[in-house]
Amino acid sequence: MSTFARQAARTARLLQVTPGWKRLQALHPDCDDETTRAILDEAAAFAEGVLQPLNTPGDRQGCTVTDGRVRTPAGFADAYRQYAQAGWLGMDVPEGFGGQGLPLTVHAACAPLFERGCVALMMAAGSARAASHLLARAADAEVAAEWVPRLASGEWAATICISEPDAGSDVGRLRTRAELIDGEWRITGQKIWISFGDHDMTERIGHCLLARTGDLPGTRGLSLFLVPNLSDGRPNGISLDRIEDKMGLHGSPTCALRFEGARGILIGEQGRGLPELFAMIELMRLLTACQGLGIASASADIAESYAADRRQGGPPEHAPVPIADHPDVRRQLHDIRSRTEVLRAAVLELATIMDLARLEADDELRRELGDLAGWMLPLIKNFGAGAGFDVANAAIQVLGGAGYTRDWPLEQYLRDSRVMTIYEGTTGMQALDFLTRRLWREEGRGLNAFLRRARQEIDGLAVRHPAKVADVLRILDDFDDFSTRMMALQADPDTALYQANDYMGAAWRAVSGWMALRLEMVGPE
Amino acid sequence: MSTFARQAARTARLLQVTPGWKRLQALHPDCDDETTRAILDEAAAFAEGVLQPLNTPGDRQGCTVTDGRVRTPAGFADAYRQYAQAGWLGMDVPEGFGGQGLPLTVHAACAPLFERGCVALMMAAGSARAASHLLARAADAEVAAEWVPRLASGEWAATICISEPDAGSDVGRLRTRAELIDGEWRITGQKIWISFGDHDMTERIGHCLLARTGDLPGTRGLSLFLVPNLSDGRPNGISLDRIEDKMGLHGSPTCALRFEGARGILIGEQGRGLPELFAMIELMRLLTACQGLGIASASADIAESYAADRRQGGPPEHAPVPIADHPDVRRQLHDIRSRTEVLRAAVLELATIMDLARLEADDELRRELGDLAGWMLPLIKNFGAGAGFDVANAAIQVLGGAGYTRDWPLEQYLRDSRVMTIYEGTTGMQALDFLTRRLWREEGRGLNAFLRRARQEIDGLAVRHPAKVADVLRILDDFDDFSTRMMALQADPDTALYQANDYMGAAWRAVSGWMALRLEMVGPE
Repeated sequence: MSTFARQAARTARLLQVTPGWKRLQALHPDCDDETTRAILDEAAAFAEGVLQPLNTPGDRQGCTVTDGRVRTPAGFADAYRQYAQAGWLGMDVPEGFGGQGLPLTVHAACAPLFERGCVALMMAAGSARAASHLLARAADAEVAAEWVPRLASGEWAATICISEPDAGSDVGRLRTRAELIDGEWRITGQKIWISFGDHDMTERIGHCLLARTGDLPGTRGLSLFLVPNLSDGRPNGISLDRIEDKMGLHGSPTCALRFEGARGILIGEQGRGLPELFAMIELMRLLTACQGLGIASASADIAESYAADRRQGGPPEHAPVPIADHPDVRRQLHDIRSRTEVLRAAVLELATIMDLARLEADDELRRELGDLAGWMLPLIKNFGAGAGFDVANAAIQVLGGAGYTRDWPLEQYLRDSRVMTIYEGTTGMQALDFLTRRLWREEGRGLNAFLRRARQEIDGLAVRHPAKVADVLRILDDFDDFSTRMMALQADPDTALYQANDYMGAAWRAVSGWMALRLEMVGPE
Repeated sequence: MSTFARQAARTARLLQVTPGWKRLQALHPDCDDETTRAILDEAAAFAEGVLQPLNTPGDRQGCTVTDGRVRTPAGFADAYRQYAQAGWLGMDVPEGFGGQGLPLTVHAACAPLFERGCVALMMAAGSARAASHLLARAADAEVAAEWVPRLASGEWAATICISEPDAGSDVGRLRTRAELIDGEWRITGQKIWISFGDHDMTERIGHCLLARTGDLPGTRGLSLFLVPNLSDGRPNGISLDRIEDKMGLHGSPTCALRFEGARGILIGEQGRGLPELFAMIELMRLLTACQGLGIASASADIAESYAADRRQGGPPEHAPVPIADHPDVRRQLHDIRSRTEVLRAAVLELATIMDLARLEADDELRRELGDLAGWMLPLIKNFGAGAGFDVANAAIQVLGGAGYTRDWPLEQYLRDSRVMTIYEGTTGMQALDFLTRRLWREEGRGLNAFLRRARQEIDGLAVRHPAKVADVLRILDDFDDFSTRMMALQADPDTALYQANDYMGAAWRAVSGWMALRLEMVGPE
């Protein structure tokens, strides 16, 4: 069985012990076990056969700019088309818009396979999918009907443009302006850090963009626009300033764009740009964890297979032993694997919660699930992103000098994953959100939902794993105490914010402990 | 004051509170405060003026192979010559061999400046210096007199060749053979991972190489040879198989060499190759920590200055504030700076102990210092190497998206430093040495010397810093207990070795706590 197929099998088995999955299947009868398994196996085959072959060449070749347009690496355009046409791009896009209407969970189960295949190319798919969801929900019916099916089919592409040179995380200071001239919105300003802001994979690219309308300061003055690169078939006043020269993700052009009176379509209401965008950002944050998981999965497999093959040590008069038998290497492999699988379990847990928070009929239950999803998202985003980098790094260590060479893809995984704790909200922003919004503003509702669910599930395992259960309950109690202390620090935000990162780390240890116990239920492969 | 000059000043101030330094100055009157400060300032100026300008271009250009010979990046050869001619290469080489005979501590104080300047080029200097020490001590007088002064002057270069395709850390399995034919040693075999194994910076390159003589298995059959690339002015049967395509250190060619009947000079006694090499490896391990320290120092400075300049956040109607004022960024900067300075203090501590272990007249004291040095070395090597990578990584996070681009050198620092926990003995090998040799075989003599010294120094600070002292004493006590448990596990090596890495981590926390308290004595800049 290929490593991709094994990853699909691992995912299918973990879904079986994810409590929300059974409930989701009841609400989504199309996702029976057999169908889900077939989708996962197809995703594995596609990722292995079509995407993975592009990963290293795409890194080496990178993107270039010719005559003001971005050229993507050889094979990217074709693979993107195949990906869309096979239905992967529109998996969880509503059926009315040419998608398959599958739950987020099925997407989150498949995404780590695709991300493992070629994370750089998948950046384009991520933006198109996010824009599809955004436009399907918020755009006028006509605009949605024109754009979403073409995004899902891969005919057109889309981007999300937020940052500007003087406003990254600090969106309240965005300066790009939209002015209504002769009944048309005209956009002027600079946007940076735009993944696939220009490329040669599709004929048309629509930029989902925040711009200032009216005079309200801060985020209240921001509105959302769709700004196509072509308007009536002609250039729409958008030019490429540069692509960034990055450490990794060389196959994904990170663009700085200049808008000069570009025609834009208002999406949703004026002044509601940021809230509209947020639902989409949630999808992107979960996807970032899937990227980390894909890279961690690939790295773990390489470390394990290298350690089983590479022979070193033992008495010189005997044949050398596989390094996997050395106690310290065993420890490294154990850390690598458990970190990867804990993340896999957590991603599936969060995805089912996000799905059920939309689907459950009971208002109170839906609210609780929504709170819990909001509480878990900054954790999963951040530690998922971190796990990609850390597991790639740990795998390099297992391979030793070989891991430092480009004979293996690990060094690329490390370079590609380094940005994941930065984009879609830095670690610092996640910690801020986790403390000030999830704990303080929402009065710990998500936290309480987490503690209740985790303790309940763990209690059920106490008979079979008493010592492990006691350990995890202690971690939960410690985190509970930490939460009480942080709640009390609300009057002293400076002190509290200094500890926000530690606090988020403690929360992740609690979630990890819970997920590690769940993994015990899956048993050996 | 430039960042290099500030690093020199920091080093000079830390030396003042390093207890061994005063004692070393008494034994080495040439190292008075004024002279030492002048040397440090000169080193800073050289590193900044000559080395640093090569660092990024050297990474981008990298090394190439033309007609079977390595070409180093533009400017490397000239800078290497300047470095040697200014006396830096021979700083701590005995005066009788054209060196300056300065203590190791002065070298360790200056080295992080040079490594910060251009770590790739300094790989060549590191090998030449190591070979100088090795040959000065172990080679016949004639060989030493021919080679060492020419190495110190930069006229010739040298390498250290240990690994082979099937024997990395496992030196007992080396297969390269030396045979005595017509009174001459002829070397045949393959060697890999040889830094600057070939280059265009000097006319002649001498390879210090382990090869098998006689039939004894394992390490007892290994002898040390000097194998020049030219013999009587003609090629000596050494060919370049390839240079590795690495993640970083692109300016340092990592060579695979093939020796086919190459003439070699036996250094020291037959069968004593590995012990001869070990003294040299100790110097290389300390130097690895200096590499990490150089990169951490540069990264910390960049993070601090970026965070002071970059303005984001605060109420949108006011001017944005420097991100250094945000609590979470303050925390990041604090972690970055304290990790860097703790390492600086630890490097100076270890270097003075290594010097005094050679210089003290009292046998018992010398032995104790030797035990302590042996105990600290795996820690400082490993966590110094790790700090380079981790601080560069943390600094990237402070810069956010900008840190991920090649507009800043941080991504190069991360790539360059990644190998440091791998070469000169992987983390796993250091942990093995730390447990089995330092704790078990030496019966904890180094450990006890550490605990005694640390507690004594810390007790002296209790009046001024009672809470901090109590914290560190607790860390020391915990580590002491951990040591007792690990000592008891000697009968169960498999269990113990699985924990060796954790145990080394606990030791480093203890050393860090001690050094952090010492830093309190230096006070603010």
